[in-house]
Amino acid sequence: MNNIDSIMQEIKKGVAEIIDFSRIESLIKNYYENGKNFYIKAGFDPTAPDLHLGHTVVLNKMRLLQKHGGIVQFLIGDFTAKIGDPSGKSATRKVLDDDTIAKNAKTYKEQVFKILDESKTEVMFNSAWLSKLGADGLIALASTFNVARMLERDDFTKRYKNETPIAISEFLYPLLQGYDSVAMKCDIEMGGTDQKFNLLMGRTLGRTYGIGKEQAIIMMPLLVGLDGVNKMSKSLGNYIGVTESANDIFAKTLSISDDLMWVWYELLSDKSSDDILNLKADVSSAKLHPKKVKENLALEITSRFHGISEAGAAKDEFDRVHSKKELPSDMPEFEIVKDEIWIVEALSNCALCSSNAEARRHIKANAVSVNQQKVIDEQLKLAKGEYILQVGKKTYAKLKVK
Amino acid sequence: MNNIDSIMQEIKKGVAEIIDFSRIESLIKNYYENGKNFYIKAGFDPTAPDLHLGHTVVLNKMRLLQKHGGIVQFLIGDFTAKIGDPSGKSATRKVLDDDTIAKNAKTYKEQVFKILDESKTEVMFNSAWLSKLGADGLIALASTFNVARMLERDDFTKRYKNETPIAISEFLYPLLQGYDSVAMKCDIEMGGTDQKFNLLMGRTLGRTYGIGKEQAIIMMPLLVGLDGVNKMSKSLGNYIGVTESANDIFAKTLSISDDLMWVWYELLSDKSSDDILNLKADVSSAKLHPKKVKENLALEITSRFHGISEAGAAKDEFDRVHSKKELPSDMPEFEIVKDEIWIVEALSNCALCSSNAEARRHIKANAVSVNQQKVIDEQLKLAKGEYILQVGKKTYAKLKVK
Repeated sequence: MNNIDSIMQEIKKGVAEIIDFSRIESLIKNYYENGKNFYIKAGFDPTAPDLHLGHTVVLNKMRLLQKHGGIVQFLIGDFTAKIGDPSGKSATRKVLDDDTIAKNAKTYKEQVFKILDESKTEVMFNSAWLSKLGADGLIALASTFNVARMLERDDFTKRYKNETPIAISEFLYPLLQGYDSVAMKCDIEMGGTDQKFNLLMGRTLGRTYGIGKEQAIIMMPLLVGLDGVNKMSKSLGNYIGVTESANDIFAKTLSISDDLMWVWYELLSDKSSDDILNLKADVSSAKLHPKKVKENLALEITSRFHGISEAGAAKDEFDRVHSKKELPSDMPEFEIVKDEIWIVEALSNCALCSSNAEARRHIKANAVSVNQQKVIDEQLKLAKGEYILQVGKKTYAKLKVK
Repeated sequence: MNNIDSIMQEIKKGVAEIIDFSRIESLIKNYYENGKNFYIKAGFDPTAPDLHLGHTVVLNKMRLLQKHGGIVQFLIGDFTAKIGDPSGKSATRKVLDDDTIAKNAKTYKEQVFKILDESKTEVMFNSAWLSKLGADGLIALASTFNVARMLERDDFTKRYKNETPIAISEFLYPLLQGYDSVAMKCDIEMGGTDQKFNLLMGRTLGRTYGIGKEQAIIMMPLLVGLDGVNKMSKSLGNYIGVTESANDIFAKTLSISDDLMWVWYELLSDKSSDDILNLKADVSSAKLHPKKVKENLALEITSRFHGISEAGAAKDEFDRVHSKKELPSDMPEFEIVKDEIWIVEALSNCALCSSNAEARRHIKANAVSVNQQKVIDEQLKLAKGEYILQVGKKTYAKLKVK
């Protein structure tokens, strides 16, 4: 049993909350004793086909469970996507057509199988059962749950109190997600902590529809992004996409703070809890430099998506470009009073380029850096703050936007 | 135009509230000027096939509108009936099967055409469009309206405050009723004042779905029943069913109070507002005895369901049985302090029968009256009040329940 204990220890690593832990334990025991698999559901709406590291927190945990008997039911919410999420937050999100859904689903698959074991994964689409539900089936589903309990959901409570509209259809979403669990007969559902209410609905409806089991739930924390403050998200730009180049993944991971590094170790690394504790101890006692530990994390994450040799090459490239680079002590300094300034304009204003056109050419030629990071997007805006601008190898300026 | 004015005056008679009166006026003008018909919706759930006078208040108004160009869309809510109303009030109401719905619908038709003009009525079933709506159509419908506004509905507000559960499906009902109006493209919807929220939903959804018109609404008051206090309802027993015998309809109508009689004139009689005002004046000036006015109302209502000659016969029968009957002046008097008393017990207590068994036999033999009305139900309970009990022709007692 010692073995099961250590497996369960690894399963708990980095997890925010587990509901029905003992059920998960017995599922895994049952796999090792009787060879019986169990089913893990995770749902994704096929609306944003670019996965980032934030999404992989859940995928990593599922890959671990696959090693111990789990079959992943990777659910693509094609039905929900066709309806369009009516919540205030994404009111402008357009309803997707069948082609886009199919295309996005394909992209999803390519991306998730960089992490999940494809041979232990079933891809499912919830239109298979939700379309059949019909208007009367949906009304019957809606009759199983009451308004007051739905309004107890944190975000609904807040919006109701703040008089931010909640569409009645939004009340149907948790029910549909729960009904997916009924139809899929999963043993475990995985999701982020923000999904707690919806995940619990799967348990409630399991009882209501008498399917003879209640799903266990594993909730993962939301991954904090590169800025060290906000959750990783595409719209905040603080993310690392799983399809980014090895060089970018390596360099961006190296850019995170030492504090955030430990959180990422918990949520993104394959290292065991014990190994991570040892690393922490070694850094505390100055036996290891944190930069070295961060490099190892960056190598591990980069390897996951590009293989070990490409990850190594990314490290070499980074060292070659950055390690010898020192900033001149006598940079010219500029101040601009503005909410934000366009990079092209900034380069002209700081006399690093003679015209906007020249600035653009330099950006295109990959010759411009801000704070020692290459500028790729020529639409980049610099918000209030201090920046080191660089064009080519030797031309620097310090810019304060205030 | 004088004619239109007097028609509009009659349409307003007894009405609780009209929304978009000018639209109704122009529909009627358009009928008289261009011969164009308009459409009046009224919905009924085929759950309780026995219509009573309370239901006919709306039917009477629709009959009037039929005379001025209205085509009635008599909507049988077979879709809603199959789902079953989940509201707390009728939680035990069972979901109806297709056969029962078809049977009830048939009974409905037989009953309503005692009032409505069948040649100007279209019978419709909402399953025709609601079944086709599908789960996604229903979700789209639910996305058009928000939770806070739905909770503003009086009864929902109360139940939410009192922590009486509201099923989420109940939020879908007003939307489905409103969607019926969209599908039916009606010009006017009729209903009771308790339906205001649902009736307005038809206007809202008319805009949302861009059907190019907003239904006008005519709301009728709820008819007060025989007791003069509560709205007429089958469960309270204070009703006159449209299928009752001529004798019963006549006698029961005569039993109402003089105050209630004027309300019934407004809501049930075909007399014009002016005629009713004249009657009132004549009663006030003692030119007419109120009993005579009540007899005429009873004759009018009875004729509606049984024809004039049967109504006349009912009046003769009533006179024969009741008019010569005088109460003895020396009745024995009894008092009982109790919330209510069972008729059988009351007869024993007042020494009109020697035992409960004898009391029952008398009731079965049709020999017992309370306040000169035959007792049919041997489970009858007498609430607080004063009663004349009678067994056979000559045995009386006065009972005060207090």
